[in-house]
Amino acid sequence: MSPGRDAVSGWLAAQRSRLLADLEALVRIPSVSADPARAAAMREAADWLSARLAAIGLQNVRRLAAGGHPAVYADWLQAPAAPTVLVYGHYDVQPPDPLDRWLSPPFEPTVRDGRLYARGVSDDKGPTLTALGALEAFLAVEGRLPLNVKLLLEGEEEVGSRTLSAILAAHPDLLAADVVLSADGARWRPDLATVNVGSRGIVALELTVRTAAKDLHSGRYGGPVANPLHVMCALIASLHDARGRVAVLGFYDGVREPSAEDRAMLSAIPFDEAAFFAGLGAAPGAGEAGYSALELNWLRPTLEVNGMWGGYMGAGSKTVIPCEAHAKITCRLVAGQDPPTVARAIERHLQARCPSYAGISVAYGDHGAAAYALPPGHPALAAVEAVLAERSGRQPLRVWIGGTLPLSAMVLETLGIDTVTFSFSTADEDYHAPNEFFRLASFDEGLTAWVALLRRLGALPAAAFAPFRRR
Amino acid sequence: MSPGRDAVSGWLAAQRSRLLADLEALVRIPSVSADPARAAAMREAADWLSARLAAIGLQNVRRLAAGGHPAVYADWLQAPAAPTVLVYGHYDVQPPDPLDRWLSPPFEPTVRDGRLYARGVSDDKGPTLTALGALEAFLAVEGRLPLNVKLLLEGEEEVGSRTLSAILAAHPDLLAADVVLSADGARWRPDLATVNVGSRGIVALELTVRTAAKDLHSGRYGGPVANPLHVMCALIASLHDARGRVAVLGFYDGVREPSAEDRAMLSAIPFDEAAFFAGLGAAPGAGEAGYSALELNWLRPTLEVNGMWGGYMGAGSKTVIPCEAHAKITCRLVAGQDPPTVARAIERHLQARCPSYAGISVAYGDHGAAAYALPPGHPALAAVEAVLAERSGRQPLRVWIGGTLPLSAMVLETLGIDTVTFSFSTADEDYHAPNEFFRLASFDEGLTAWVALLRRLGALPAAAFAPFRRR
Repeated sequence: MSPGRDAVSGWLAAQRSRLLADLEALVRIPSVSADPARAAAMREAADWLSARLAAIGLQNVRRLAAGGHPAVYADWLQAPAAPTVLVYGHYDVQPPDPLDRWLSPPFEPTVRDGRLYARGVSDDKGPTLTALGALEAFLAVEGRLPLNVKLLLEGEEEVGSRTLSAILAAHPDLLAADVVLSADGARWRPDLATVNVGSRGIVALELTVRTAAKDLHSGRYGGPVANPLHVMCALIASLHDARGRVAVLGFYDGVREPSAEDRAMLSAIPFDEAAFFAGLGAAPGAGEAGYSALELNWLRPTLEVNGMWGGYMGAGSKTVIPCEAHAKITCRLVAGQDPPTVARAIERHLQARCPSYAGISVAYGDHGAAAYALPPGHPALAAVEAVLAERSGRQPLRVWIGGTLPLSAMVLETLGIDTVTFSFSTADEDYHAPNEFFRLASFDEGLTAWVALLRRLGALPAAAFAPFRRR
Repeated sequence: MSPGRDAVSGWLAAQRSRLLADLEALVRIPSVSADPARAAAMREAADWLSARLAAIGLQNVRRLAAGGHPAVYADWLQAPAAPTVLVYGHYDVQPPDPLDRWLSPPFEPTVRDGRLYARGVSDDKGPTLTALGALEAFLAVEGRLPLNVKLLLEGEEEVGSRTLSAILAAHPDLLAADVVLSADGARWRPDLATVNVGSRGIVALELTVRTAAKDLHSGRYGGPVANPLHVMCALIASLHDARGRVAVLGFYDGVREPSAEDRAMLSAIPFDEAAFFAGLGAAPGAGEAGYSALELNWLRPTLEVNGMWGGYMGAGSKTVIPCEAHAKITCRLVAGQDPPTVARAIERHLQARCPSYAGISVAYGDHGAAAYALPPGHPALAAVEAVLAERSGRQPLRVWIGGTLPLSAMVLETLGIDTVTFSFSTADEDYHAPNEFFRLASFDEGLTAWVALLRRLGALPAAAFAPFRRR
């Protein structure tokens, strides 16, 4: 190990408590992008990051916006022969609801058993500040970075990255790079070195059923009049067949069955289905029949109701026949599925099954992204695998994720480049649920891993990426 | 018309503005039984009534309580050969929410277009004071009542009469009577003289579906894991068949088809189904096939979901697979159905259809009452019909109500007597909604109608009721 490397690592060790205090300061800011009442907190988080980026020596700090919460941008471009990476993270967080399930308040970071608990600490403020810490260490110790870095910290990841595509499209030269290194996403398991090579897409829609002009008393009107909750249930129940398969005509158009290679890759992965279900307090049997749990999560599309409501939800009973019912639906998509085409197929299915005594309306979310797959021979994938192998002593496994990284598809479409995820959050960290946490050990591990990855990529010629440019 | 009758009517006409001022005073007291913050107002309303009852010359004024808001009792028992009637009303009111929909404040009585607007004015303070006004008129003009009267003014009608049964059971001698005259309930339509001869019963339950120990991310877990909203929808959808019939085994046990007499009675009623649905902004076709709207509302039982919820209900989308889903269910019951038996049949249906990967629990509400039917030959029914016929010039129509009057079933069970409703509120007076009102013409009409009814019942021998005592 070179003296430089020792010095960077030493700097990180010495600064550890200050870096952690920075993370705590950032997660105290309730930057919930979905909540209009949190607009001031969104600005505060962007300000906090902008100030940090300038303070550590990054240049050209600015905001990029396209009508929504802005992304924070900065760069350092003084390594002419080296590749250019676009480091991605996000500063917005999920809503903290249900608040009553949190053991400590969501925006008061609390350490318990080596874990830092707070909304957004794992998704994605912790991983984002991990990458930032590595950049700071290089600049502080060596006065330079080993390659050209552009940083793009989004403010709308948790609301479907609704303006990110416009931001990317509006700044093709500013954001041009050889590859995106994403500090978002999550390691699949804490006990296994893995690298993500693909993610599912997503499409969202919201269904409203209406049956009358106003809520009605169930005694005075019950019997002849329709109940929108009954209609809603029948419609939702019609979306899956008895074997757990989505029953929407055209839903699976373009979807290929897992190949022999896919199945071989999956079978190489140590995965205990019984332990998986037991760990969730859940039981198998609900998914599409004929597929393993990993196939269902990574290689098969889903249609899920994420929320449903109507009528009286308070204590006791209220004898009301509501006039409306609502359901929020998202689908996870795989290669071959086009988000708007899937949404329209679902709407057609629902419209065709809506009884004459009800009316439905379907609103399309802006939450759409196609599935993504990283080319197997990509040099950034090789670099990530080498870093992880070096640190764990064995070759990391290639895995998919069942979630969506809308970024990858957008970046491919707008900038023509691929995205490698390099995040040190872990998928069990309850990042869309109460009691989200980030392992402090992951923070430490991530800081030095980012240092190693940036060095390794900096040693490659920029030309190594040319064959993988998609345009 | 006897001079006495003229004098009583003349007294009512002379006292009209004072009687109306009394009603305004009572509706200014926000006696919302469901709201613990209104406990003082509940006491104030009971005090106000107690003072009025004593002032008009009723005796033995007291409160009867069984752990909840007390009922106010008073009597006048100085007509030894005449029948004894138990006059029922209630002084508690529905919560006024949603407040922003009221055109004038709910507890500031306001006259507009011959209607008095205020929470509780139609249900049931107006009808209660109508009966009281008639008693006062007799006592003021004639110094006596034409029959024995016991008065029971409940304080928990709007919270399911939760202690009324205990109050009735605890005072069998005090409350013993030949018939109950209820000033609660509502005339079916403003344009038609009707008398209620039956009401549906009710039973409530709440279903919870659980599929995991906590909410899960739809990307990371979606595919292999169960979604409780999907399970809930399939279960709820299974409760009705394609023809709108409740599909629960045993649900219709004991239910008889409408008889030829029932159908003849219903067909005599002018009822425009198209106008009924149009007025609600609704469409026909959802109810059990083969029955008219009135049959469905009055003579057929229902199973309704009154509220359902689970997962994310806020703005935008949240990619969550919730771990729980909830539904509130009530059934309106007809003769032959036992509330707890029906609830257990529904639970068995749900348990039998719950998939292996979900767990359900069913909680029973305390909101249970059997259906009630007044015997067709009851002398109090004949008296009410005669009074209404005399005043409208034609025989009133016998109608059912689709709602529940728990009082009738409780009185039958505890006191062994029947209940005749004699209320001058009307079913369109928004009594569980914003802008509740009471027609001032109904107040005037009710005062003299109560006078006529009490005279007519007082002319009957007490023995006329003996054949109808249920025990």
